Amino acid sequence: MPKNFNRNVSAPSHSPVILYGRHAVVAAVQNPRRKISKILCTKENADELRRLIPDCPLTIVDRKEIDRILPREAVHQGFAAYCAELPVYALEDIIAMAAAKERCHILILDQVTDPQNIGAIIRSCAAFDALALIVQDKNAPAETGAMAKASAGTIEHLPLCRVTNLSRAIAALKEAGFWIIGMDGYAQTDISCLDKTGKIAVVMGSEGKGMRRLIEEACDVNVRLPINEKVESLNVSTAAAIVLYELNRR
Amino acid sequence: MPKNFNRNVSAPSHSPVILYGRHAVVAAVQNPRRKISKILCTKENADELRRLIPDCPLTIVDRKEIDRILPREAVHQGFAAYCAELPVYALEDIIAMAAAKERCHILILDQVTDPQNIGAIIRSCAAFDALALIVQDKNAPAETGAMAKASAGTIEHLPLCRVTNLSRAIAALKEAGFWIIGMDGYAQTDISCLDKTGKIAVVMGSEGKGMRRLIEEACDVNVRLPINEKVESLNVSTAAAIVLYELNRR
Repeated sequence: MPKNFNRNVSAPSHSPVILYGRHAVVAAVQNPRRKISKILCTKENADELRRLIPDCPLTIVDRKEIDRILPREAVHQGFAAYCAELPVYALEDIIAMAAAKERCHILILDQVTDPQNIGAIIRSCAAFDALALIVQDKNAPAETGAMAKASAGTIEHLPLCRVTNLSRAIAALKEAGFWIIGMDGYAQTDISCLDKTGKIAVVMGSEGKGMRRLIEEACDVNVRLPINEKVESLNVSTAAAIVLYELNRR
Repeated sequence: MPKNFNRNVSAPSHSPVILYGRHAVVAAVQNPRRKISKILCTKENADELRRLIPDCPLTIVDRKEIDRILPREAVHQGFAAYCAELPVYALEDIIAMAAAKERCHILILDQVTDPQNIGAIIRSCAAFDALALIVQDKNAPAETGAMAKASAGTIEHLPLCRVTNLSRAIAALKEAGFWIIGMDGYAQTDISCLDKTGKIAVVMGSEGKGMRRLIEEACDVNVRLPINEKVESLNVSTAAAIVLYELNRR
């Protein structure tokens, strides 16, 4: 039996979540950190999963049976899995991971609440090698199937850290040598003008309201993306992707 | 009466579409090119629309009445409008608009079918001053409320062109002095290495399959975004936003 099925599914600190969609479920079954209690899939998909993981514990069902357990708009492609939420990282873990590095990037979200946006942001963090994503526990949604799907399965590997107090987390990152950049549509400086060496944490607020004032003031510098002034803003996940691309750009 | 309400709502070439959401409806009522037959909104929203356009022809309704005419998952914020589709541009119009410019960018989509992705791409085109978006008529969805909402109303202003034959459109753009760049995850060249002066048209394929072979071969050069090889791809609207940002980057 592969080690990822040697699982304790009753870990009390993790709420259950139903993952769905090919990428999300395939990535989950290949992740040793993901505790899965049950996988539902169609006959064709069972063959696909078994090719990947020969003794994968599956229940073969009709597509309609998966429809029944998910929200109406969920595009599941004949894959669903009952899982525990992934364990999150402590801020200390993230800081320890950064210690050995000369150069790394962290993304911090202030009050971004839409699971699809957060999932899309996780996918961009993974694509552009961000070290971790930090959110404020009380203002960010719990892990959901929609979030995992929007992340195209990359949620399985990106370190996610939930902190109680974002200002305190920013202070701790500063102490650990991070330069803190706030994204602000009204800032004077274009992000492409920044010195991008070293350790950088970028803070992004919600689309409508931006960062809260205290968070904005905690940043070392505020910068903007150079968009046409007739367009109010970019979608927050789009803006995050561009920021992560720019930080990684050689 | 402002000129945008002097409308011929029965233009036979335009199918009806129901726009919804604050940004989409507010932008539509301010667009003289948009033929609107009826606006439904809640009492509070009526005040907001009348502040913008004093003699706006509104029907005030309960939120539930708007729920009834829209798909269940549509987040309408108490705004809906029955409209005609926007008139599209001919390729000749786009080429004529480009003639006077030394530098401009066009985005071309090959078989991207999701209305939300197309709406998000329209928003990024508007934000990064693309001249136009070109799609193949038979492979792109008609304008929808979901597309307009994802565009945050920017669909009202971005020139959209539907062509019958994408290869022929690319040939015409080359003749008009455009350099054609294809986005391809397997390309050797990183997009940041390109010379970005002059007129550029970028072609993007669908997320799963990329560009069709004939389209790929029609490009002058194929380039990729520098993502981690463990991540299969970016969402097509995310990739488009990064490409448009990079082309505009000084």
